[in-house]
Amino acid sequence: MKVAFIGLGTMGIPMALNILNAGFELTVHNRSRDKEEIPAKAGALRAGSPMEAAAGAEIIITCVSDTPDVEAIILGENGIIHGSSNGSIVVDMSTISPSATRKIAERLGKKGVKMLDAPVSGGSEGAQKGTLSIMVGGGTEDLEIVDPVLKAMGKTITHVGSVGAGQLTKAINQIIVGGTYWSVAEGVILGIKAGLDMDKVLQAVGSGAASSWPLINRSGNMIQNSYPLGFKVKLHRKDLNIALEIARELGVTLPLAAYIEQIETGLIARGHEDEDLSSVARSIREQSGLD
Amino acid sequence: MKVAFIGLGTMGIPMALNILNAGFELTVHNRSRDKEEIPAKAGALRAGSPMEAAAGAEIIITCVSDTPDVEAIILGENGIIHGSSNGSIVVDMSTISPSATRKIAERLGKKGVKMLDAPVSGGSEGAQKGTLSIMVGGGTEDLEIVDPVLKAMGKTITHVGSVGAGQLTKAINQIIVGGTYWSVAEGVILGIKAGLDMDKVLQAVGSGAASSWPLINRSGNMIQNSYPLGFKVKLHRKDLNIALEIARELGVTLPLAAYIEQIETGLIARGHEDEDLSSVARSIREQSGLD
Repeated sequence: MKVAFIGLGTMGIPMALNILNAGFELTVHNRSRDKEEIPAKAGALRAGSPMEAAAGAEIIITCVSDTPDVEAIILGENGIIHGSSNGSIVVDMSTISPSATRKIAERLGKKGVKMLDAPVSGGSEGAQKGTLSIMVGGGTEDLEIVDPVLKAMGKTITHVGSVGAGQLTKAINQIIVGGTYWSVAEGVILGIKAGLDMDKVLQAVGSGAASSWPLINRSGNMIQNSYPLGFKVKLHRKDLNIALEIARELGVTLPLAAYIEQIETGLIARGHEDEDLSSVARSIREQSGLD
Repeated sequence: MKVAFIGLGTMGIPMALNILNAGFELTVHNRSRDKEEIPAKAGALRAGSPMEAAAGAEIIITCVSDTPDVEAIILGENGIIHGSSNGSIVVDMSTISPSATRKIAERLGKKGVKMLDAPVSGGSEGAQKGTLSIMVGGGTEDLEIVDPVLKAMGKTITHVGSVGAGQLTKAINQIIVGGTYWSVAEGVILGIKAGLDMDKVLQAVGSGAASSWPLINRSGNMIQNSYPLGFKVKLHRKDLNIALEIARELGVTLPLAAYIEQIETGLIARGHEDEDLSSVARSIREQSGLD
């Protein structure tokens, strides 16, 4: 099966390498062309544009930062739509707007090209280990064709609905993640200011109704006041803005997601944009005069 | 070892029965005296007041609703302080103010009576099964004496610090629990309004950074819009008020805890006070025009 991969960032490079390692024939392209060198050394062909990469590929994967990037790569000048064959499938693994996704899928559909949205969670570690969680929206038959390629990159592949449903699910994930980090931060900072032995406190509260992935895996950052990566604050803010856009479209109120987006905006303004999301705890620390 | 147990509510009755089953000699008292009948049938003696119950007991356990109740039972007319022997230990398993706890401990200390604060989590199910998580503040030697009695009621007994530290830890637990429930509710209600198959969505997001006890155990309530008990909204609001009082004393800002306290106040005003805490999702549903 011939596969194209466009977008070789922190996530894209290890994902592309895992596709190569699984034995697929791979062509890669990246806007900054030097990024193509690592997968090329591992056996990938290089293409000069998304259009060229898409030519002759049965599956075309995109993995870039935001909605305008995906629109440019697929629909723009030298975009995928100008190179892709009738019957090929575009798989967008970026995290972008679900309504923009549906519009792109419609445009591709008119040329006989199918689309799946397949955003991921699990971070760069999951991308390297091939253990990403992949949330897929789109047609069942299209997913069946693409499934072996997704299995090269991810451990949990969940078909959540039609085109756009993957992006909606990712937005839900980011809403819940942000709020849970914040909840843990409020509790942890109160405990620190009260002078408690936080290891003992977390031992006491960590096995019951307060337990969560952020409590177990990120409360240590908050206690140390050190936030190594992780998942970047600036990327989570981008994802929350997508979630808030969805909320406006659907008419759903998300006061906590909106609040955390503002907290993150403050963190970015103060130079913490590349820290792990657990640095939301900085805000409570500073507001409480701890630092 | 002679034990007294004062406060036979939903939690207190099964806790007292577990103490009896573990072979301790037990005297019980409750303001509404008829509640004493169940433990009495199981072999407990009955006392006419906290003072009478405390007389001759080595360990005196209190398990009531709020700070003023504990103050009345321990320090009031016919209170424990008037009956307890020099060297006996009062163990307060209610969830109350840590600063009030320290003041009560000081008063008891002047009469040679020790105090531990030992609030619990795990709900009525944990109380019945003897699997409560118990967060203990107070002296190490006092806890060693009381430990076999606590083991009759709980599975995880964590010594978190000096007198009051148990209550501080419980407050941290309730802050984190409330915020985590709310985070899950925002994500779930967005998914419902988007028309997603929520079982698939939860399968996709439930094993990564969004995972938590409330996501796994209470998102079903939010999807069904049905909130059987559980942990009562009115009790969580009481606990959040304690947390906010602590935050004011220490100078810590807890914007989410304060917000959820207000959401719960609205739920109570609309008659949902005895529903499970997961009914915070009602607020987002209603604000989003879902019901």
